[in-house]
Amino acid sequence: MKKKKYSNKKDKMPVFRVKDMDIATGDVRIAILNKKDAQILDLFHLDRLYIKKNNKKTTAILDIAESEKAVPPGSIGLFEETLAAINAKHNDKVEISLAPKPKGLEYIRNKIKGKKLNHNEITTIIKDITKKRLTDVELTSFVIANYIREMSLKEVISTTKAMSATGTILKFKKHPVVDKHCIGGIPGNRTSLIIVPILVAAGASFPKTSSRAITSPAGTADTMEALCPVKLTIPKLKKTIADVGGFIVWGGAMNLAPADDAIIKVENAINITSEGNMIASIMAKKISVSPDYLLIDIPIGKETKIADKETAVKLKRKISRIGKYFGIKVKTMISDGSQPIGRGIGPVLEAKDCLMILKNNPNAPEDLKQKSLKMAGMLLEFCGKAKKGKGKKTAERLLKTGAAYGAMVRIIEAQGGKEITPEQLPKAPLTKKIKAEKTGTIESISNQAIAKIARLAGAPKTKTAGIELLKHKKDKVKKGETLIIIHAKSKDKLQYTLKAFKETNPIKIK
Amino acid sequence: MKKKKYSNKKDKMPVFRVKDMDIATGDVRIAILNKKDAQILDLFHLDRLYIKKNNKKTTAILDIAESEKAVPPGSIGLFEETLAAINAKHNDKVEISLAPKPKGLEYIRNKIKGKKLNHNEITTIIKDITKKRLTDVELTSFVIANYIREMSLKEVISTTKAMSATGTILKFKKHPVVDKHCIGGIPGNRTSLIIVPILVAAGASFPKTSSRAITSPAGTADTMEALCPVKLTIPKLKKTIADVGGFIVWGGAMNLAPADDAIIKVENAINITSEGNMIASIMAKKISVSPDYLLIDIPIGKETKIADKETAVKLKRKISRIGKYFGIKVKTMISDGSQPIGRGIGPVLEAKDCLMILKNNPNAPEDLKQKSLKMAGMLLEFCGKAKKGKGKKTAERLLKTGAAYGAMVRIIEAQGGKEITPEQLPKAPLTKKIKAEKTGTIESISNQAIAKIARLAGAPKTKTAGIELLKHKKDKVKKGETLIIIHAKSKDKLQYTLKAFKETNPIKIK
Repeated sequence: MKKKKYSNKKDKMPVFRVKDMDIATGDVRIAILNKKDAQILDLFHLDRLYIKKNNKKTTAILDIAESEKAVPPGSIGLFEETLAAINAKHNDKVEISLAPKPKGLEYIRNKIKGKKLNHNEITTIIKDITKKRLTDVELTSFVIANYIREMSLKEVISTTKAMSATGTILKFKKHPVVDKHCIGGIPGNRTSLIIVPILVAAGASFPKTSSRAITSPAGTADTMEALCPVKLTIPKLKKTIADVGGFIVWGGAMNLAPADDAIIKVENAINITSEGNMIASIMAKKISVSPDYLLIDIPIGKETKIADKETAVKLKRKISRIGKYFGIKVKTMISDGSQPIGRGIGPVLEAKDCLMILKNNPNAPEDLKQKSLKMAGMLLEFCGKAKKGKGKKTAERLLKTGAAYGAMVRIIEAQGGKEITPEQLPKAPLTKKIKAEKTGTIESISNQAIAKIARLAGAPKTKTAGIELLKHKKDKVKKGETLIIIHAKSKDKLQYTLKAFKETNPIKIK
Repeated sequence: MKKKKYSNKKDKMPVFRVKDMDIATGDVRIAILNKKDAQILDLFHLDRLYIKKNNKKTTAILDIAESEKAVPPGSIGLFEETLAAINAKHNDKVEISLAPKPKGLEYIRNKIKGKKLNHNEITTIIKDITKKRLTDVELTSFVIANYIREMSLKEVISTTKAMSATGTILKFKKHPVVDKHCIGGIPGNRTSLIIVPILVAAGASFPKTSSRAITSPAGTADTMEALCPVKLTIPKLKKTIADVGGFIVWGGAMNLAPADDAIIKVENAINITSEGNMIASIMAKKISVSPDYLLIDIPIGKETKIADKETAVKLKRKISRIGKYFGIKVKTMISDGSQPIGRGIGPVLEAKDCLMILKNNPNAPEDLKQKSLKMAGMLLEFCGKAKKGKGKKTAERLLKTGAAYGAMVRIIEAQGGKEITPEQLPKAPLTKKIKAEKTGTIESISNQAIAKIARLAGAPKTKTAGIELLKHKKDKVKKGETLIIIHAKSKDKLQYTLKAFKETNPIKIK
């Protein structure tokens, strides 16, 4: 290929031959030029390029290849995300030009310097994030500035609006549309798989989008996936609500508020969460399914996201005001987040707990059942499907009569699964009991240590892995009695889990 | 290659065959595994790996290859920086294991949350940066937190100490050792090439390490490079001070305070500078050459790093206190930074100005000469090479008699160059005069716009490119008189420069 001279005129844009690098970053779009070409074109590492094929154009971040093996002069190495964005294949020809820095950068800088951002400025930044125009340095700067400077209520509203507007927004015809969200951090707290079928049985529409585990042993999407597929197309989702009244799916497949995912990725990487981003993140995803009524559970405890009641009440007020602004009726409840809930921790083990509750099995975990009934009751009253003060009673009846279980089976089938009993669920290859070393009363159980142990056993990647937690706070135990059953994928994982149990000592007996 | 089972025991570390990816990031060490291997080993994008070959070990950040073209199962793709770190070649075998998150992360999180960091914590972070253990997200979080939370004097001292301690520290036998630094932002302000030879002629040791341009048309290192090599080995540097008393070299080649470069890279990417980091950055690099006396020039002006006198005075105090702590006698001067200094802007054109001053050419730019003489005078008095009140006079004599020029020729020759007259310097292929559109007085000249225009002409990449600025503030001009001469590499560059001149209108006539 002949090298063309660089010029700023459109009709003279340099043309390069595509080399499919066959690498995916999972995120940022990358392009690689040979050092010689970069020098001729006066381009630098981290410059932004426009890459154009026919009428498709994308922005990519530039990397430089030092020698000719990876990317020879005249070629441009493209990562998978970049190829996909312009529909390009190996050996295609593409035009490149220097892209200006995204406009949002100036506003990010203002935020760092302490200025409040207006709606247009925030929208510009969120669009830049959605279009993957920001480098890690730029995105992180925004996230940290939002954390340290704190977001005003106005900024949270703008962020929420911009986030939901840049993604899919679903509207359903059958009202009332209800939704719930829990501000996580409690292992085993899988209430959605109980609450959704109860509300659906009562005649409400319940489009539940949920997340996969990032740092926990199971997300609602992982748990539901133990029972049926959770990646559905938009038309299928609409049909499911129309046909059976509810679904429980993975939101990640649906392009709901995509900017939010990029922000959460940074927050997880550095392990901080700004309150403003958290509220915007929750509300933007909820707005995406257009609920009429929304219940938010705020568990408090030393090891959850919200440490004390004061913070929880502040958060509750902010969420309610944001809900009001968007025309969603929001109720919040503050709950006990001091220990894990339910028995199973890990996708299959949690799904088993839920099925047992729905099937009225007397051995089902009572704490998870009671919390779910309370929340379902609140939602039933809230959306007019139960009289005031009668919500929990109504929920109990819907469970007892099998109506909720029936709704769950219909949901599972609509999503492409089959009815399955708790006993038919797959099991991990190895189990091991951990026994109490003394007689006494359980004083405390650490959420974080329990989560860590369940992950070490293989959850959520190995769906059957995790732990069964047989005791809860205030329970009396005798020396030698089983506290925990570990379900592991391999001997290695089991041994590592046992070691971690000894080191973290998550269950304190007094 | 047989796949080995993952285990946490050292004697079972999985072995991979190296694929040289032939890509350099210029910074972070990257390793790529095939998706299948990553799944087996439960490794994720952005995980940190230890990569070991014989007794060499490095940390690298993990990327995932989606299919088998780039990195097949059993292979590990390594970027140039990673290969270099463990001396590995294509097809070598390496062992990998999951590396723990660096300890500094916890302290970065504390800084984000508003805690002050102690010396050990800062040292840990700076070591993590030096060893390239931090991802862009983590490093940026630290930089932004330092900016927003502001660093205490104690934190600045710890950062300075840790930064210089992680790099080379040079000591010279011949005292007094003097040094200077200018807090940049003024095009053409190339005083070092005058001050160093004057002080050397007076018998002081002057080990001047300087930087290349990052966002400006020329750094001191780029300008000196127009006259002689600026990359010298450490033994050569010591010999040069012993033999001729001074050098002017590129600090980037010398591993002085390497953590600082990583931080500056992030600050430039987002275009913010924290005062604390700036002070630590300057002082750490100065400490690296162990000066007895140090002069710091703080130009103030709307378009420089320091906007007003108040900020400059605050900065001056802090720098003096840090200097005292490290046993360096520091003087600071506040200067006028409201317009470019000298005539030439661009490496060769600036070098030409300096040679003309050193050769007492009557056409040499008077403003650059006067500023240099003033600074040289201050340093001469400060280090005891001139009597109090006689510094500038002494400097003038050393210049007038040719002693300074002689010292400069010796320095140039010691660094591997040859004596050259201003007329013998290479010239850009094209020049173009820009003329005044009306008669009047020059009201203002924009530093930033002038810098931009000189860069568009090709500086600093094309050494001969840049601009000659024939007029300064308060000069009278007639319509049609030449204001600027553009020196460009090509017609394209010239046209683009002319367009930018019209758009930015950097010289206002009243």
